Amino acid sequence: MPDDLIPDVLNDRCPSRMVLNHVTSRWGVLVLIALQDGTMRFSALRRRIGGVSERMLTQSLRLLEEDGLVLRTAHPVVPPHVEYDLTPLGVEVAAKVHALAACIEGNLGQIMAHRAE
Amino acid sequence: MPDDLIPDVLNDRCPSRMVLNHVTSRWGVLVLIALQDGTMRFSALRRRIGGVSERMLTQSLRLLEEDGLVLRTAHPVVPPHVEYDLTPLGVEVAAKVHALAACIEGNLGQIMAHRAE
Repeated sequence: MPDDLIPDVLNDRCPSRMVLNHVTSRWGVLVLIALQDGTMRFSALRRRIGGVSERMLTQSLRLLEEDGLVLRTAHPVVPPHVEYDLTPLGVEVAAKVHALAACIEGNLGQIMAHRAE
Repeated sequence: MPDDLIPDVLNDRCPSRMVLNHVTSRWGVLVLIALQDGTMRFSALRRRIGGVSERMLTQSLRLLEEDGLVLRTAHPVVPPHVEYDLTPLGVEVAAKVHALAACIEGNLGQIMAHRAE
């Protein structure tokens, strides 16, 4: 990114747009919210997030790991034991995502009433 | 939605999941942020949101309108004059989306450094 460019998601050349897309992806959003409960194994995460496929969960976790929001720890045991956590920055981002989801959950009655009109 | 169901985006049978998908869609996120600047015509919105196509902007606006987050006002003049605004609930949701985007913009240096590793 050029030094003179202030990060701006409305600018399609700004890399913040790409990170926002990871964080707000269909499953990325839910991974961040689910990991607020603490360290989780893949299978537990998958149970927690209704409807996610193994493939989509793997892909979402990898993108969030690359962005430094999720930490993957593989314990060298047999069978493999892999755990996922939020990083400190992930905790911060997850809190914002959670606030958004909570706002929608809290106003769902009003939204569904409007949709029914 | 059954009365005994507490809204929960992690539950794939909860309609809050659908609304969250509209709000966090690739262009829905940016529409909400752009409309924080106030009333806008379609053409101005399209200029403000880098990279959005006419078709995707139309579709995103329609979904947010159905959820009661965006208000579409068509003035009966020739040529047609259509304006878009956030509803009061849209203002609330847009603030949460904006806080999330600002968090990513503000930490972009750290994120890109991690991605480069």
